[in-house]
Amino acid sequence: MADLRQASTVLRIATPGQALVEITRDIARWVADQGMDEGLLTVFCRHTSASLTIQENAAPAVQRDLLDWLARMAPEDHRYAHDDEGPDDMPAHIRAMLTGVSLTVPLIGGRLALGTWQGIYLVEHRRAAHRRDVALHILGA
Amino acid sequence: MADLRQASTVLRIATPGQALVEITRDIARWVADQGMDEGLLTVFCRHTSASLTIQENAAPAVQRDLLDWLARMAPEDHRYAHDDEGPDDMPAHIRAMLTGVSLTVPLIGGRLALGTWQGIYLVEHRRAAHRRDVALHILGA
Amino acid sequence: MADLRQASTVLRIATPGQALVEITRDIARWVADQGMDEGLLTVFCRHTSASLTIQENAAPAVQRDLLDWLARMAPEDHRYAHDDEGPDDMPAHIRAMLTGVSLTVPLIGGRLALGTWQGIYLVEHRRAAHRRDVALHILGA
Repeated sequence: MADLRQASTVLRIATPGQALVEITRDIARWVADQGMDEGLLTVFCRHTSASLTIQENAAPAVQRDLLDWLARMAPEDHRYAHDDEGPDDMPAHIRAMLTGVSLTVPLIGGRLALGTWQGIYLVEHRRAAHRRDVALHILGA
Repeated sequence: MADLRQASTVLRIATPGQALVEITRDIARWVADQGMDEGLLTVFCRHTSASLTIQENAAPAVQRDLLDWLARMAPEDHRYAHDDEGPDDMPAHIRAMLTGVSLTVPLIGGRLALGTWQGIYLVEHRRAAHRRDVALHILGA
Repeated sequence: MADLRQASTVLRIATPGQALVEITRDIARWVADQGMDEGLLTVFCRHTSASLTIQENAAPAVQRDLLDWLARMAPEDHRYAHDDEGPDDMPAHIRAMLTGVSLTVPLIGGRLALGTWQGIYLVEHRRAAHRRDVALHILGA
């Protein structure tokens, strides 16, 4: 068996404001560059108003419905205690808590174990465009 | 210290339609077969309309309440943009986003670090019975 | 490259009843003691009515809004099937499912890859004070 080793990097992702930005390809390319057959990939979003989700990457309407649902669950027009960074800030924190900032995906037989319809998305919850840092780490052989 | 090594597999789980299907025993058996004392287990659901959760495994009423709550949060009778795969499809994606598809559990002293009342569940969000693939990966010694 | 190794422990955290209890410093101290430069940290909450989240650690009002939101999403005054452990028990399970019990954070350049405003919180969902066990595991070099 080959010796276990690890690698890490940080991807910088530009977002256009509220959106699901697919980052599967950027991640898969970096993973392929590590030349491992089996291992564990971790994806970590370094922000509190953006987050990560693994969701269906075929029908664009799904992403629209997911964003609509997040907006209904944590609406802007609620009276929040924390309101000094704009009306979209506190809802962004709630939506980030709801979806989460860390994901782990096994690498099996040289490929990420994602299902046929699964894509990895960075979810931007603020109205303005941002640059977001996503840390990647892999352990394997 | 024993050398670190890794192993992975895919479990195929039959679901009866919307339900929390406990998979703790299947996972614990596979982990025991790897003969490790300390390590990190990753559980990954390869679908976008089924997901994973760790929840109370004592009272069956808890599972009923969790499913009821998911149904109230992401109801079928909303007008979704994505509606061409049946009324239970888009709610299933939302419920999967809400609960997540990857879990990590440390292995300490030869046992998964699950608490006394914690069980690992595959959550089926579609109405029909399905076969679902759950990838397992362990790194340890 | 230094040889990969692993370490694990269990932190016992006292909670005052419903609250976000920041545990970033306890975790960072234990991680520093392991003397690794690069690796993967896993944080695992061994309970079904407490959970984990990574959230903004600057404005205290954010934590109040997050707790308020969780209380609105899974209110105590709903008629749950599981009601024999008190009115705050089933809402606690739902809120724990919503936020999750496992987190993974890469260690890069000798530091956890947390963003500037990110703190790791144990979320107590029960009304009474509790002692909660949080398992930590790290793999790295």
